[in-house]
Amino acid sequence: MINVGIIGVTGYAGEELLDILLRHPQVRIRSVSAKVDKPVKIQEIFPKFTGRTDLFCNTPDLKEIISLCDVVFLALPHTVSMGIVPRLLQAGKRVIDLSADFRLKDLKVYEKFYQVKHTDKDDVKDAVYGLPELYRQDIKTAKLIANPGCYPTVSILALAPLVALGFIQTETIVIDAKSGVTGAGRKIAEGFLFSEVNEDFKAYKVNVHQHAPEINQELSKLAGKKLKVTFVPHLLPLNRGILATIYAQKNQKVVNSQGQKLINLYKKFYKKEPFVRVREERDYPRLKDVIHTNFCDIAIKEEKERVIIVAAIDNLLKGASGQAVQNMNIMHGFGEQTALV
Amino acid sequence: MINVGIIGVTGYAGEELLDILLRHPQVRIRSVSAKVDKPVKIQEIFPKFTGRTDLFCNTPDLKEIISLCDVVFLALPHTVSMGIVPRLLQAGKRVIDLSADFRLKDLKVYEKFYQVKHTDKDDVKDAVYGLPELYRQDIKTAKLIANPGCYPTVSILALAPLVALGFIQTETIVIDAKSGVTGAGRKIAEGFLFSEVNEDFKAYKVNVHQHAPEINQELSKLAGKKLKVTFVPHLLPLNRGILATIYAQKNQKVVNSQGQKLINLYKKFYKKEPFVRVREERDYPRLKDVIHTNFCDIAIKEEKERVIIVAAIDNLLKGASGQAVQNMNIMHGFGEQTALV
Amino acid sequence: MINVGIIGVTGYAGEELLDILLRHPQVRIRSVSAKVDKPVKIQEIFPKFTGRTDLFCNTPDLKEIISLCDVVFLALPHTVSMGIVPRLLQAGKRVIDLSADFRLKDLKVYEKFYQVKHTDKDDVKDAVYGLPELYRQDIKTAKLIANPGCYPTVSILALAPLVALGFIQTETIVIDAKSGVTGAGRKIAEGFLFSEVNEDFKAYKVNVHQHAPEINQELSKLAGKKLKVTFVPHLLPLNRGILATIYAQKNQKVVNSQGQKLINLYKKFYKKEPFVRVREERDYPRLKDVIHTNFCDIAIKEEKERVIIVAAIDNLLKGASGQAVQNMNIMHGFGEQTALV
Amino acid sequence: MINVGIIGVTGYAGEELLDILLRHPQVRIRSVSAKVDKPVKIQEIFPKFTGRTDLFCNTPDLKEIISLCDVVFLALPHTVSMGIVPRLLQAGKRVIDLSADFRLKDLKVYEKFYQVKHTDKDDVKDAVYGLPELYRQDIKTAKLIANPGCYPTVSILALAPLVALGFIQTETIVIDAKSGVTGAGRKIAEGFLFSEVNEDFKAYKVNVHQHAPEINQELSKLAGKKLKVTFVPHLLPLNRGILATIYAQKNQKVVNSQGQKLINLYKKFYKKEPFVRVREERDYPRLKDVIHTNFCDIAIKEEKERVIIVAAIDNLLKGASGQAVQNMNIMHGFGEQTALV
Repeated sequence: MINVGIIGVTGYAGEELLDILLRHPQVRIRSVSAKVDKPVKIQEIFPKFTGRTDLFCNTPDLKEIISLCDVVFLALPHTVSMGIVPRLLQAGKRVIDLSADFRLKDLKVYEKFYQVKHTDKDDVKDAVYGLPELYRQDIKTAKLIANPGCYPTVSILALAPLVALGFIQTETIVIDAKSGVTGAGRKIAEGFLFSEVNEDFKAYKVNVHQHAPEINQELSKLAGKKLKVTFVPHLLPLNRGILATIYAQKNQKVVNSQGQKLINLYKKFYKKEPFVRVREERDYPRLKDVIHTNFCDIAIKEEKERVIIVAAIDNLLKGASGQAVQNMNIMHGFGEQTALV
Repeated sequence: MINVGIIGVTGYAGEELLDILLRHPQVRIRSVSAKVDKPVKIQEIFPKFTGRTDLFCNTPDLKEIISLCDVVFLALPHTVSMGIVPRLLQAGKRVIDLSADFRLKDLKVYEKFYQVKHTDKDDVKDAVYGLPELYRQDIKTAKLIANPGCYPTVSILALAPLVALGFIQTETIVIDAKSGVTGAGRKIAEGFLFSEVNEDFKAYKVNVHQHAPEINQELSKLAGKKLKVTFVPHLLPLNRGILATIYAQKNQKVVNSQGQKLINLYKKFYKKEPFVRVREERDYPRLKDVIHTNFCDIAIKEEKERVIIVAAIDNLLKGASGQAVQNMNIMHGFGEQTALV
Repeated sequence: MINVGIIGVTGYAGEELLDILLRHPQVRIRSVSAKVDKPVKIQEIFPKFTGRTDLFCNTPDLKEIISLCDVVFLALPHTVSMGIVPRLLQAGKRVIDLSADFRLKDLKVYEKFYQVKHTDKDDVKDAVYGLPELYRQDIKTAKLIANPGCYPTVSILALAPLVALGFIQTETIVIDAKSGVTGAGRKIAEGFLFSEVNEDFKAYKVNVHQHAPEINQELSKLAGKKLKVTFVPHLLPLNRGILATIYAQKNQKVVNSQGQKLINLYKKFYKKEPFVRVREERDYPRLKDVIHTNFCDIAIKEEKERVIIVAAIDNLLKGASGQAVQNMNIMHGFGEQTALV
Repeated sequence: MINVGIIGVTGYAGEELLDILLRHPQVRIRSVSAKVDKPVKIQEIFPKFTGRTDLFCNTPDLKEIISLCDVVFLALPHTVSMGIVPRLLQAGKRVIDLSADFRLKDLKVYEKFYQVKHTDKDDVKDAVYGLPELYRQDIKTAKLIANPGCYPTVSILALAPLVALGFIQTETIVIDAKSGVTGAGRKIAEGFLFSEVNEDFKAYKVNVHQHAPEINQELSKLAGKKLKVTFVPHLLPLNRGILATIYAQKNQKVVNSQGQKLINLYKKFYKKEPFVRVREERDYPRLKDVIHTNFCDIAIKEEKERVIIVAAIDNLLKGASGQAVQNMNIMHGFGEQTALV
């Protein structure tokens, strides 16, 4: 049984975290906090939790959080986390940060995309990128988890086997991703009003989205060379879920060889993964298959010269809070699927 | 051919007005304005109008508007219109005000529900309530039209025949109304975010909505006595349309008599109306029947002691901008349906 | 640990049942069945269950089901259940029937509304109406549960305290109910196509819905006299949830007395109920508060002469499968909230 | 003034056609037909048309249609049109066919993708592909218009300038297209039920869709060589609109040259087109900009080696019925925008 705290409980990721952790048999939630004028019952903010918890939401008091918790989840806006992490780490706490602050190892890239100076460079080095399928060993002993972004989670999982094996021409990778609206957080802006989004669909940040460098960083590591994908996100008129359709040219060597079917490579690659499901041929995932689950579903359509990959996750679960709890489970030796199935 | 201006073109009602008036063969749009930092092409605000108009949107300059226009539409937030109307009227312009500022004859009620002092009491008296089905004669010569609210339009049209004839017990009237989200205007607030409204449904301002006194005022006039309806609005997860389900007990006299079917009274009452369609028995309107039209569809289910009425409009057309143009057409002797069918 | 079977697993209620029962620690699912051409893996029907179960869906084989299961859930269309129930009961199985076949004690009413002869009249008498808030004692020992309809569940819970206490004029009760589309089941008909329902809203079966007699039966028992509500259902363009807005006149005696606030009576009435939440004054439930939960939220707005009640449930949980599992928990002495929170 | 008929008025395209043609000042609708049991008022099928027309919908009677109409629109399922077209042409009628039957010049391809023998091979040769931006001259005198598919319309318009100029490596073209649900017609199938589509998103017919050969045929003609695009359609949970995101590598020659910006080539290419709007740099179309209009909006993001194009149309207007009326306007020398703006 461990004691956990959530800072930033009022956003969509924080709300989802609370929902999961309330069901977790080895967790005691000791502190939930966010910017509030005065302590307020969680059920006044989220009436749906009435009868499930009597927790109060307070303005974060780091001293108290440190005294109460073993693990702290940060569900905060980008650039806020890095102001808090050092103190938590110094107090010996383990931290799972859902923001982007500790994901990018190249701080110049971070500062360019997030338009802010990074103030905690030391901890960036030690942060573990919290994608269990690639870094499970490091996660076990990590002090600071940089929980991956939603688009990077689905994109990296969809491409990892091919990139690691050197089977595709990496300069031809196109990631056409479509996300539900909670991906943007509870942001109050005209562009996220119901009447603006409903019955609409659009591309945005066309090949300039801040998640692209995160994808590039991880795929480059797998490829053993620097690569740069083409990444175009779109906004779907629905609440949750990301579906990415990914295109790439095979390497000429692979085209010519009579090797194994790529789908079998995927099955082997993800054989032991509890949350990656490689779909059968011609059986493509739809969002319904993954929303309200922590699974990432991946289908591969292999053509002679080209590969098309369709992959899907719930952006609030495998793309954020579910993956954060998966990381916590790994860190503490709990069953990896606990509270997630 | 008349010259018109729209003040407040950037809201949903203003946008819809522009769309209608661009199709109107007897109208020249001379001025469109709203709070903008600098003059900006309409197509930059609303790309959908590209190729249909080259108008610029300016910050409202009353002097210029007066010099250019014969009729001015005000698609402004409540409490803003009353600061502008006097000057327009003094300059001899005809004004169609889509806000609530001139709808309520009892200023105490206005001030209670809109939480502001009324600053143009004189013009309230002369304003004509712009519901053509009740006030067509007055509209013809009106200088100032108080264009009805969306809920009042559908509620009053649905109840007028029964109330005017004294056939129902007015204290038993229940109006359970459901509106799409554009009814709230382009309001940037958490409650109108996509992820909040989508897959949700709720009642709001339960029997305390500011449109209730407007309904009460007009039905009381028809009844010849003060009445007070029960009015509960709800927010639908869709863009446009209002559907109201209305319940009332018949008067005992009517219950006992073997009079005409109520549906026939409705048909007679609205016989000459171009925009009211009384539906056949057991044929209830759905929103699809009326959205993107200026029609109000009404069905009556008559039971022994009780009446159930289902009525529907498009809140942006018959409930706002369509009705405003209908009023303009009447004021200028144009075909009443021009640009509306 | 008990052995359970689900007949009719491919509908929305069956799918939801499976989802709940897979999480239930005291349940072993031994059989899931539905009309299928040949045995098929559940994950081929519902890819979302991949990795959670290896069950096959078969065409129902009663003999096998009887040999394997202690409890059988029937998630079948109305009029099909009654052909199966007798054999299950004779074999000593406990049955939870989610259809309407055993809900109405007056078979003439059943036959009128469902347009079919009832073929199992004997078992109707012994069936227990599975609304735990009213019949918990009987449920404990019941052999056959008639699991309530979705509209009746929310309507009866919303009205029970007032009707039981005789505080309202029952002939004035109006239930204006709005349901998401899964309430209709996985019915393949033009009226349920996406393009028909999306951006639409309508009333249907206006005061002739088959759930009205169920509401009338239960409220009449509470009132100690025959009553008949006015009930108008509407179809919401969303997946799950029912919200009912209910209106009634107080009894004159209650109007005149200076008694307890009605909200306090509700709180007392539902004090020990794990799944009914009486909301505070002016805090009305929205669907978001209850979907994906087994709760029924109820708010009371008390006026001088009239009462307005707003109540909400998830039609697939408290309105169907969640309530079915709640009944199962009660029947077997499990914690009533097991697998439901 | 011409006399027109619509065969297949009850589908989405037929309904939209009727809506447009009722507003067309130079058109008299003489016949509307579809499979119906007996003649039925249009307003009974589509209550929204009440008050706008008194037409009856009949089962198609070709003899009568021929005697009444100058132009006949066929809004019929694929493979049905080809049974009707010969008789209409022999009678000297001009035909605008919205189905796929006369679009593909290579009948082997047609027969492979539509799984049926073609029974009217002669007329295929003479049919004009009704994309005004490419074939306006031929359309003027055409007897038979093969009205383009929705995906091909947006895809061809988005790619035509680059392909015609030989600026991209055609084997790298990826078309990732997303369509609203009306694109599938009023098809009654489980996959199009509201509860299946709502809150869902998926790819379908991944690189095997029947519109791909239509795109390939037209782009190949422009390129002067056979090409084959990668085409993946997706189903959006909304009623109308298609947005395509298109990716291609530039030709090395173009990469190296310091030529004109591609956006300027597009502007030149579509300079005189009334219904193609080339958007400014970094100003991407969203569906809202084009739905309920006949416009195709196109944005070009030019990178060093790659081009990304985002294009959008309303699938029922520019993608079907609007384009059909545009073709009719061209055929009869009417203003091309008549009834379409």
